[in-house]
Amino acid sequence: MSVATNTVNSGAGPDPQASIAAERAQSKLNPTVMHYFLEGGVESAEDFKSLCQQMERDPILANDASYYDLTKSQQRELTVRRIARVAQYLEITRNRKSESMRSTILNLYDPSLGTRIGVNLGLFLGCVRGNGTKAQQKFWTQTKESEQLKGIYGCFGMTELAHGSNVAGLETTATFDKEADEFVINTPHIGATKWWIGGAAHSATHCSVYARLIVKGKDWGVKTFVVPLRDSNHQLMPGVSVGDIGAKMGRDGIDNGWIQFSSVRIPRFFMLQKFCRVSRDGEVTLPPLEQLSYTALLGGRVQMVMDSFRMSARFTTIALRYAVGRRQFKSAAQADGTETQLLNYPLHQKRLLPWLAQAYVFSVGAWKMEHTLTRVWDELDEAVEKNNMKAIMRSIDELKSVFIDSAANKSTSTWLTADLIDQCRQSCGGQGYSSYNGFGKAFNDWVVQCTWEGDNSVLAMSVGKPLIKAVKEVLQKNKEQTWSLAFLNDAKKYDNKNVLITSAADVVDMSKMIKAIEVLITRIAIQGMRVVAENNNSYDSVGAASLAISKLKAHYYMLQEYLARMASNEYKELTPYLQKLGQLYVTANVLEKFSGEFVGNYVVSPEVLNEVTNRTIPQICRDIRPDAIALTDSFQFSDFIINSAIGKHDGNIYENYYGTIKQLNPPQNTKASYSAEFETALNRASVDVRQRFERSGVAASILSE
Amino acid sequence: MSVATNTVNSGAGPDPQASIAAERAQSKLNPTVMHYFLEGGVESAEDFKSLCQQMERDPILANDASYYDLTKSQQRELTVRRIARVAQYLEITRNRKSESMRSTILNLYDPSLGTRIGVNLGLFLGCVRGNGTKAQQKFWTQTKESEQLKGIYGCFGMTELAHGSNVAGLETTATFDKEADEFVINTPHIGATKWWIGGAAHSATHCSVYARLIVKGKDWGVKTFVVPLRDSNHQLMPGVSVGDIGAKMGRDGIDNGWIQFSSVRIPRFFMLQKFCRVSRDGEVTLPPLEQLSYTALLGGRVQMVMDSFRMSARFTTIALRYAVGRRQFKSAAQADGTETQLLNYPLHQKRLLPWLAQAYVFSVGAWKMEHTLTRVWDELDEAVEKNNMKAIMRSIDELKSVFIDSAANKSTSTWLTADLIDQCRQSCGGQGYSSYNGFGKAFNDWVVQCTWEGDNSVLAMSVGKPLIKAVKEVLQKNKEQTWSLAFLNDAKKYDNKNVLITSAADVVDMSKMIKAIEVLITRIAIQGMRVVAENNNSYDSVGAASLAISKLKAHYYMLQEYLARMASNEYKELTPYLQKLGQLYVTANVLEKFSGEFVGNYVVSPEVLNEVTNRTIPQICRDIRPDAIALTDSFQFSDFIINSAIGKHDGNIYENYYGTIKQLNPPQNTKASYSAEFETALNRASVDVRQRFERSGVAASILSE
Repeated sequence: MSVATNTVNSGAGPDPQASIAAERAQSKLNPTVMHYFLEGGVESAEDFKSLCQQMERDPILANDASYYDLTKSQQRELTVRRIARVAQYLEITRNRKSESMRSTILNLYDPSLGTRIGVNLGLFLGCVRGNGTKAQQKFWTQTKESEQLKGIYGCFGMTELAHGSNVAGLETTATFDKEADEFVINTPHIGATKWWIGGAAHSATHCSVYARLIVKGKDWGVKTFVVPLRDSNHQLMPGVSVGDIGAKMGRDGIDNGWIQFSSVRIPRFFMLQKFCRVSRDGEVTLPPLEQLSYTALLGGRVQMVMDSFRMSARFTTIALRYAVGRRQFKSAAQADGTETQLLNYPLHQKRLLPWLAQAYVFSVGAWKMEHTLTRVWDELDEAVEKNNMKAIMRSIDELKSVFIDSAANKSTSTWLTADLIDQCRQSCGGQGYSSYNGFGKAFNDWVVQCTWEGDNSVLAMSVGKPLIKAVKEVLQKNKEQTWSLAFLNDAKKYDNKNVLITSAADVVDMSKMIKAIEVLITRIAIQGMRVVAENNNSYDSVGAASLAISKLKAHYYMLQEYLARMASNEYKELTPYLQKLGQLYVTANVLEKFSGEFVGNYVVSPEVLNEVTNRTIPQICRDIRPDAIALTDSFQFSDFIINSAIGKHDGNIYENYYGTIKQLNPPQNTKASYSAEFETALNRASVDVRQRFERSGVAASILSE
Repeated sequence: MSVATNTVNSGAGPDPQASIAAERAQSKLNPTVMHYFLEGGVESAEDFKSLCQQMERDPILANDASYYDLTKSQQRELTVRRIARVAQYLEITRNRKSESMRSTILNLYDPSLGTRIGVNLGLFLGCVRGNGTKAQQKFWTQTKESEQLKGIYGCFGMTELAHGSNVAGLETTATFDKEADEFVINTPHIGATKWWIGGAAHSATHCSVYARLIVKGKDWGVKTFVVPLRDSNHQLMPGVSVGDIGAKMGRDGIDNGWIQFSSVRIPRFFMLQKFCRVSRDGEVTLPPLEQLSYTALLGGRVQMVMDSFRMSARFTTIALRYAVGRRQFKSAAQADGTETQLLNYPLHQKRLLPWLAQAYVFSVGAWKMEHTLTRVWDELDEAVEKNNMKAIMRSIDELKSVFIDSAANKSTSTWLTADLIDQCRQSCGGQGYSSYNGFGKAFNDWVVQCTWEGDNSVLAMSVGKPLIKAVKEVLQKNKEQTWSLAFLNDAKKYDNKNVLITSAADVVDMSKMIKAIEVLITRIAIQGMRVVAENNNSYDSVGAASLAISKLKAHYYMLQEYLARMASNEYKELTPYLQKLGQLYVTANVLEKFSGEFVGNYVVSPEVLNEVTNRTIPQICRDIRPDAIALTDSFQFSDFIINSAIGKHDGNIYENYYGTIKQLNPPQNTKASYSAEFETALNRASVDVRQRFERSGVAASILSE
């Protein structure tokens, strides 16, 4: 594809492929082994690769650059074709772990597809499992075959036009009609219209509706009901109005819709009754565990931390491959006459390597969160099964801690991943703006993760508030905190201005820095406690502090787990690499980003901060630089997953990019649909002609007579 | 459009319209007068409004929500139709100021259109004006009528596939053929392919090509040439290969293309020869002013600061209108039973009001930059005309200062505006993700501003380096700095650890804080100087410091001008409002964002920082809160410019939004193009049937015999 190599004027073009080959040749890191670490073990690492291969070879699931040219309707058509294909795999998959791995891969290369399936399997069925009786669970998931994307297809009717974060304030009503033994589902006004419901516009047959239970005039709060939307001929049920929400910033493949119910009747037993029950006579019983009914979104939040890891890995891979292939300007050090690789500039290292560190640290945190949630659910189920009240209360207590961690980690990791995609895009200059390099669509698809299933700011508040309360309990009532808040028990010890980190050497000791984060969170929480007291006990007054606490709590979680995994994992040859990445994370991603907080709260001295910025971070970047490509190869992404012309494994950035563009936009088509119109406009008659010479001298003299 | 208001189950819906009306009723600010301030005077304010009205009423230029549903080809068709329409206005407009105002409005509501016209008028003709002789200028701009988008249409051929920021390294060649008295334009290899060229794919007839001048085997560096791409029948010239770059993250309306030249011959006099001349005999003359030939992008950079102001204004308006109409959760203070307006939460004020302050401060800086550049160009032209060497050198000296300011301001303001659009989107929760509310498209269209016409990071480096050098000259050689670097002359005085700001009261004194920024820049530059010395005099080692210097320099410029305008403007009744916005900018947008730098460099004490975060900023936000709507009304944007369902003037967010969605996605269309395929998949036969019962018990017993 290179041009004019056989003519007089031809010259030698750039050879980025040679650059990336040289990077690989000189690194001693074994990417296969590092991949075991990143995927939490050999078994899931091999599973990841084999599932990717299966999808890459599948005629319907395979992706390429043409994906970036699809219109909204084309993308929706493709998504539906792919759902049908995934359904066939689901029918023959026996392994639940593999199913979960498959869904994380779908979220990575076709997020619309992942979501559209996730709405049914994760949210609709998650709601049924979380709130339905055993019999109800079996009926809706297995008897109706919806587990295999067959027969019925569910959507998740929580959000309304006027209520999102405030679930308890939802306004759709489910009024019990004792005579008919039915609930009447109704949308009282425009604000209560179910909104953003994924799959509602054209696909879903059923909806798990969050509505206020009204029995004998009494409002029992928001409960869940399965409401059929379409009959078996896929026609809308009477009383059900549905519309397409239309164009969105991203995730074009999802048919988000709005739903209004006009006195829609469902049998009483369509109410999900694991917790709250309504008897034939209209007696309402609320068992003590009802607080668990709000946990439907927990699994999704944990999954988003995993998505954050994978998406971070994908885009650092693209940006770093480009950064070694691309050369710009000559630095004095460059003896061979070529220009300098972008990644040899200290600023470029600083721009990209902390994101690489993020992918690594997130991988450990994501796996840990996933395992923890599974374990806690299992323990709780067992305790409930055995009616072991002590074990139940212990699990509920741990669940509260999981709730805090998942809220902090979901919000922090999705925000940082949005930043990462955009910063990696910018680091590729103009090429980052081409759709075929993957950034634009990924960003647009991604950012909704910061809003849905718990708005990030609201989640952060929900982390800050309990931490500030906890520190207050410790200081004022000596109450001991448990689980992930246990570190606050040392609050008294740190309620002062003693500077913890006074030497730059301490900063690269990860355990010291983890301690420093602990102290910083404690001090911000203590200050928050005082501001709350000054403001009539209003926690609204500490929004900004809560935000900082939540983000720091997430970094704290991630780093603790990373340090633990580094110590416990069997591949000791990886330690030097992991160590550097951890040090970079703690300095560049935590200390520098919160420098005002660290110095302002006397945790780190100003001298150390200056040293870290001017010397420590540049040095760690220099140390990681030679292995940058091997560290991204370790994610083991094939070109199919990467789907970026400048991000392919061979590093042949210019030929791949130019080739993709020529293939999808053949230069033989020299005219566009608007060419004729443009040419006519360009070659239009003069303004005098078009004004019929009415302003000419002749006209002037006549008209002035 | 409200539903079911006449049925038994109906209830009262939200009434956001009443909320916004109440906001307007209680504010004492006069938005018309404030608009005079924002537009730099009555004349341009009235011009702005009258141009908006003209466009809003024009059948082709008017915009509405259907704009967000256009596919790439539809958008390109619309853009071309609009170009033809704008051309008609250009033919009858006598006022240059109005023309420039019109282009800033186009950039605001249809950036693809603005760019596509700007590439011809601003870049192509800018290159001709900057580099051509008087006769060449007249020929290409007036004789050929291209000034009025007529006859010929130019594109700007600077960037190549392998070279963007490094303009001096471009590889396209222009070889002088003395015998034929022609230049031969050639693309030597794939890397030298002209890339991203706006308008090249299907529209442009000519290109201002940046190519290496080769005469008698000697490479004279990069010069500019007008090269025809298409003939008067709009067919590609022989030797010219052009292709469509295809899908991009945004600006779908622009037909960016690539161009390869295969020994394309142009007459010698197609070279732009204001500075460098090639005689009939191949004698090359380079006059002393050649350094001015690289200033073609300066006008664009200044315009981007103006774009930043307007775009910041547009999206803070939308987000703040939503924030007063939307209510969520009940706070204790809410006595009337309604939920709390989002903007009454301190965190929400903190999230949005600093962006409002940004729009205000940017407005002043943008106007100032525009006036300064015009003045300096005019003075230089006059000096050149009169051949006044002293005046010429003075203007060139000031131009260097303008270059630094424009680089710092362009990069900082485009980055911050990208953040602003995205943060404002997030503040609207899920509604921010709907295309019809404007954020997604605006962000995608916007972010290329951070990359083109000077990559922001490269520009920031180009600010940091001269400042560090200047501080070194001051400290080591007592050399006096001029123009915008003059403040560095005090460097010796501040080369210490004396803390400047030790009281929170100082922080709201804008002139003290401007001084503090000055000192901070000085100290970072001094540290940078030392790091450079440690690293073999390599300025690459201070990339991160340069970035901070550049951003702070931009804030410094903006705040200085803001303070000056506040003092000099005639509408004294505005001062209390302007004062608060300036204080918020200096504390939330500068001090907090650079808190690590301020405290780490001993400019601000830790105590002050804590006080600012916990008390000062929340208090300023509370003070501004009551006038938030009036302050956005002051931008005087009609609904046509806003083009956001939740951002309309009447504040009727839910009805407007729901109405837009229903209109553009009629719920009568209950089936999608993929419905049949989906339904077939859902109602598929069982897996046993589809496997032809080959795995049944019967088959098993037969096959196992």
